[in-house]
Amino acid sequence: MLKNKIVKLAARPSGFPSENTWTHDLEDIGEINDGEVLLKNLYVSLDPAMRGWLNETRSYIPPVQIGEVMRAGTIGEVIESKNTNFNKGDILSGWGGVQQYSISDGKGYFKVPSSKIPLPTYIGTLGMPGMTAYFGILEVGNIKEGDTVLVSAAAGAVGSIVGQIAKIKGCKVVGIAGGKEKCDYVINELGFDGCIDYKNESVKRGIKRECQDGIDVYFDNVGGEILDAALVFLRMGARIVICGAISQYNEMSAKGPNNYLSLLVNRATMKGMVVLDFAKKYPLATKEMTEWILDGTLKSKEDVYEGIENFYEVFKKLFNGNKKGKLILKL
Amino acid sequence: MLKNKIVKLAARPSGFPSENTWTHDLEDIGEINDGEVLLKNLYVSLDPAMRGWLNETRSYIPPVQIGEVMRAGTIGEVIESKNTNFNKGDILSGWGGVQQYSISDGKGYFKVPSSKIPLPTYIGTLGMPGMTAYFGILEVGNIKEGDTVLVSAAAGAVGSIVGQIAKIKGCKVVGIAGGKEKCDYVINELGFDGCIDYKNESVKRGIKRECQDGIDVYFDNVGGEILDAALVFLRMGARIVICGAISQYNEMSAKGPNNYLSLLVNRATMKGMVVLDFAKKYPLATKEMTEWILDGTLKSKEDVYEGIENFYEVFKKLFNGNKKGKLILKL
Repeated sequence: MLKNKIVKLAARPSGFPSENTWTHDLEDIGEINDGEVLLKNLYVSLDPAMRGWLNETRSYIPPVQIGEVMRAGTIGEVIESKNTNFNKGDILSGWGGVQQYSISDGKGYFKVPSSKIPLPTYIGTLGMPGMTAYFGILEVGNIKEGDTVLVSAAAGAVGSIVGQIAKIKGCKVVGIAGGKEKCDYVINELGFDGCIDYKNESVKRGIKRECQDGIDVYFDNVGGEILDAALVFLRMGARIVICGAISQYNEMSAKGPNNYLSLLVNRATMKGMVVLDFAKKYPLATKEMTEWILDGTLKSKEDVYEGIENFYEVFKKLFNGNKKGKLILKL
Repeated sequence: MLKNKIVKLAARPSGFPSENTWTHDLEDIGEINDGEVLLKNLYVSLDPAMRGWLNETRSYIPPVQIGEVMRAGTIGEVIESKNTNFNKGDILSGWGGVQQYSISDGKGYFKVPSSKIPLPTYIGTLGMPGMTAYFGILEVGNIKEGDTVLVSAAAGAVGSIVGQIAKIKGCKVVGIAGGKEKCDYVINELGFDGCIDYKNESVKRGIKRECQDGIDVYFDNVGGEILDAALVFLRMGARIVICGAISQYNEMSAKGPNNYLSLLVNRATMKGMVVLDFAKKYPLATKEMTEWILDGTLKSKEDVYEGIENFYEVFKKLFNGNKKGKLILKL
């Protein structure tokens, strides 16, 4: 009988999660029922949003319950199917969780097409982070050619795609990232026009230098002081996309943007987004982004680590800045 | 020769302005030139925005300079005219400043029509505060019938009109005001559905009670803790209109809304507004609001004090809550 290694939520953390936040369990896998598939998970997506799912308060989706498998996006291979929609050998993307095997009725899963694109990209640029970037910058940020776009966490899974899409659409794009290596990557490999190294310079000074005419769209993944700095440089009618606030997720109480009255002075808008709202349009975005990846216009970087045992070590990289691109655990 | 009593900016205040922030001068009035009018100012508008105009930093309009007449909206009577557009005896609304007489080329002034509506209303509900309320709640807040609308400073010049317009448009309207007397006024005279007395109860508890299904539109005149409380109760797709932040204007450093991530969870929008952007549409708003005032649908309250000598004493009422409706100085 197959054994399944499972990472389950053991306790709700206050502040930064510890190793004791999760347990590692080994369980038998039973028979699957009619309509179900058994998946061998190949890749697990690690996302900053995971931190929010650990909190008891209901957010845009219910929290993970104590004792439940840790929620995560996955790429898995069908190794047994009693579901007429899926065959053995199909590769599916969905919410398999942090475990080696998942049993599912197939809801929320879709087949990953066979292409030249590596599998991990389907939970990165062609998965949630990519969809977030695509709809966030195009539909919420509503960019126009010639706009100056500022993106925080610019070397990350979402930010790197946001900036590249903005470049494709004819914007001037400036990133914010931590450290010289990331900034070089953002400029030289991703093609941003500039990058501010928040670890080694004042973000305000950096924005002043790189965005001399101010900011039309700020795509915020981090919150905190960087959001406050961006507010100072808004142009008339600017849009701020609130996509995340990684600087605040592990804080006991979040800190708001003190400079928010810049919204008034500049008739600007701050708007929150959750990618799930755009689910119906994912296929369109996937089609367009697939073309961009295949023709080399859009670069997709995955940072892949191995072994379910290392979940916690890899999870920490989401928050300590020690990664580049989309963070993925290979099982 | 006519003598003009003038209130001029003497020093930029840090924190709350003192009596020494302004000087009272007496100056001769010279001859007017071709194209100019001489106005005897009858009413001076006192607005929270005045505090912002004292700061050196450029905001949506330039600051008042040291030694300049204190900027203010006025209603004045033409007592001499060398401008073909205006005749002696005309009543004009415009930016006459805190002084007994103004000389102007007429730009930015418009004739107050003769009607049953008292003159002070033309710098209140039919002036800037009214225009702010009208465009803020209709165009920025984008209210729809059935929305739950929360308004802070609900007994004030802007808030009282915001709430009444929202009622006219079929919304459920809840105010926030300081003290039982104001809350009674908001409910019984202005027809709001409820009112939260922030001086005597927790605003959060009040919102929970009065807006049991949450808030669709929050019209913010105050900022600070009340904005933070409102954020907690946003419904999906809610809109926050940032019209002002009277709780913050005299603070050395403003405090941001710590609960801003509610924008993300609720896909909500926070948008700043400045009424001047809607100037081209003022005549339309004036026409509609005049009808509402004349048929009794819209109640307009002015709190009128006399004497230019009392400018500072009356100015203080903008911030200490000791007024109801639109604050006006009669000269």
